[in-house]
Amino acid sequence: MASTPSVPLLKDELDIVIPTIRNLDFLEMWRPFFEKYHLIIVQDGDPTKVIKVPEGYDYELYNRNDINRILGPKASCISFKDSACRCFGYMVSKKKYIYTIDDDCFVAKDPTGKDINALEQHIKNLLSPSSPFFFNTLYDPYREGADFVRGYPFSLREGVPTAVSHGLWLNIPDYDAPTQLVKPLERNTRYVDAVMTIPKGTLFPMCGMNLAFNREIIGPAMYFGLMGDGQPIGRYDDMWAGWCTKVICDHLGLGVKTGLPYIWHSKASNPFVNLKKEYKGIYWQEELIPFFQSATLPKDCTTVQKCYIELSKQVKAKLGKVDDYFIKLADAMVTWIEAWDELNPSAEKSTELPNGAAAAAAK
Amino acid sequence: MASTPSVPLLKDELDIVIPTIRNLDFLEMWRPFFEKYHLIIVQDGDPTKVIKVPEGYDYELYNRNDINRILGPKASCISFKDSACRCFGYMVSKKKYIYTIDDDCFVAKDPTGKDINALEQHIKNLLSPSSPFFFNTLYDPYREGADFVRGYPFSLREGVPTAVSHGLWLNIPDYDAPTQLVKPLERNTRYVDAVMTIPKGTLFPMCGMNLAFNREIIGPAMYFGLMGDGQPIGRYDDMWAGWCTKVICDHLGLGVKTGLPYIWHSKASNPFVNLKKEYKGIYWQEELIPFFQSATLPKDCTTVQKCYIELSKQVKAKLGKVDDYFIKLADAMVTWIEAWDELNPSAEKSTELPNGAAAAAAK
Repeated sequence: MASTPSVPLLKDELDIVIPTIRNLDFLEMWRPFFEKYHLIIVQDGDPTKVIKVPEGYDYELYNRNDINRILGPKASCISFKDSACRCFGYMVSKKKYIYTIDDDCFVAKDPTGKDINALEQHIKNLLSPSSPFFFNTLYDPYREGADFVRGYPFSLREGVPTAVSHGLWLNIPDYDAPTQLVKPLERNTRYVDAVMTIPKGTLFPMCGMNLAFNREIIGPAMYFGLMGDGQPIGRYDDMWAGWCTKVICDHLGLGVKTGLPYIWHSKASNPFVNLKKEYKGIYWQEELIPFFQSATLPKDCTTVQKCYIELSKQVKAKLGKVDDYFIKLADAMVTWIEAWDELNPSAEKSTELPNGAAAAAAK
Repeated sequence: MASTPSVPLLKDELDIVIPTIRNLDFLEMWRPFFEKYHLIIVQDGDPTKVIKVPEGYDYELYNRNDINRILGPKASCISFKDSACRCFGYMVSKKKYIYTIDDDCFVAKDPTGKDINALEQHIKNLLSPSSPFFFNTLYDPYREGADFVRGYPFSLREGVPTAVSHGLWLNIPDYDAPTQLVKPLERNTRYVDAVMTIPKGTLFPMCGMNLAFNREIIGPAMYFGLMGDGQPIGRYDDMWAGWCTKVICDHLGLGVKTGLPYIWHSKASNPFVNLKKEYKGIYWQEELIPFFQSATLPKDCTTVQKCYIELSKQVKAKLGKVDDYFIKLADAMVTWIEAWDELNPSAEKSTELPNGAAAAAAK
């Protein structure tokens, strides 16, 4: 699993998207696994600062000036001074798959001491089906050495296409500010050798630190919202994307996996700064979760774009009452889709339901 | 985790239930972990055969004659010549917790080579809450070294009482006959160091090989159905109990956990014999799963018994059309509850909703 294949998997079909404000020295450590892939770097913050990329990497870099130039007035939907700007990279990519990673994430080791090729595991996750309709107690039944157990309905064993692969983190766990404050020394040392499908109808906290997805089947739902400069909250960008994505995956009959691969998360962000960014989110969330848990999409929403526009209407109608911020966010969701379709003129077509998913969506 | 505490946890509050047709030599291996607990042995098959129990164990043993004597005509609800008879042990127990294990299950080793105290891990699972309403990506948040991750709603962090702890198996995986036939050499060698709550609304294949539960809050739902001698199917006893139990737990706001602990499953049962037992179940199951997925219980079902009786009515009305067997099974479900209440006169009261669960059930 941790080996480097001589020709990297999906070399010409995957972009690595990295949001950053600093030099990308962390890429040195990832060289054996990333060097053959194309990078899309989205510069978060001051565009006059020069970002240094280690030699030998093939990349394109966008700063705020580029985003404004490319999107014009629609650039308003892309967050400024916040790593949420990474979703601009998803939009300008022309590839089928995206892997996104934070610049404080290093190569982790498996329990045998071998370097983990995180990208390879994500690709395995994305290229094998998901099983969202029934829980398999031996975890991902498509992994080598595993299968569906006794009592798993045979009609469900074909699975559904996997849209998202959510990877985890050793060392610094992805805790909110209150938990960081209460447990400053807690480290995640438990290597759980599992990948699993998150069941249909169940929401999860999607972290953007170590995340891969099939851009062709779910890309337009991967909007990281309005965070950072000029916005009332931060650190809910990936969560927002995760909740929208999960509702849409459930509707379209697509799968979301979580578990392996691990990366090594090197340092905790400042819990006091985080608390300031999060505190409104912490109480808004108590209304967001019931909203997403009960959100349903009509049958004629057969593309991700249609689903997303419908969801934006529900956000405006129902969450607009919680705070005006959600009215602004709902508008930005529409702008995001308009910008996506402008940059991806064939996207409306390419994100039509894959085979078999239509039936699942109708369930 | 694999240590033996000097005073075993819940020593006087837990019974170990073992269905068997042979001498219980396997208990020698479990002596360090089981010896202080009381055993309930249910003899499956010919009552004239003498079952030998290793010295030093405190046990009660029931054969078919005992079951007939104790239950009278209601003994018809207990399977004959099938390990499904184990549920008689749940009924006669007077303890709060049950652990049930098959007699071909041995002590497994963790990756460090240490013997796993399966019972101790089950007790930890049962004594800590479950989190069925939202997925936690670092698995059981109540385990040492773990917590709820960023984005997990704070209002859900109290969790709900855990009713069931479903343990797994190293070596011989719990496969159905078709999978056994196709993969005769597959062994489960992957030790996944995780416990997790199965989300609300998601069904799973509950295996009875290595299973613990809180008898006080879910016992009457743990009926293993009509299998074996004189019945058209086998090997769906634990599955049936699992589906009924999960629907009732979801309704009552109780949790079901799966994952650790592992036991070592020593030998595969005969796949040809299994196929004969399973084949009707394999196609009936395609109707059973949608039935259980869509089953809802009315709000006035506030005890496990009331839920179970209501479920039996739905089984008769909806699955009776699939096969007459389900009419017989629905009647046996009612008999089971009558017998349970007869042997547990205070049970109706003791299985009232625990604190907090009423609110969850109303969701």
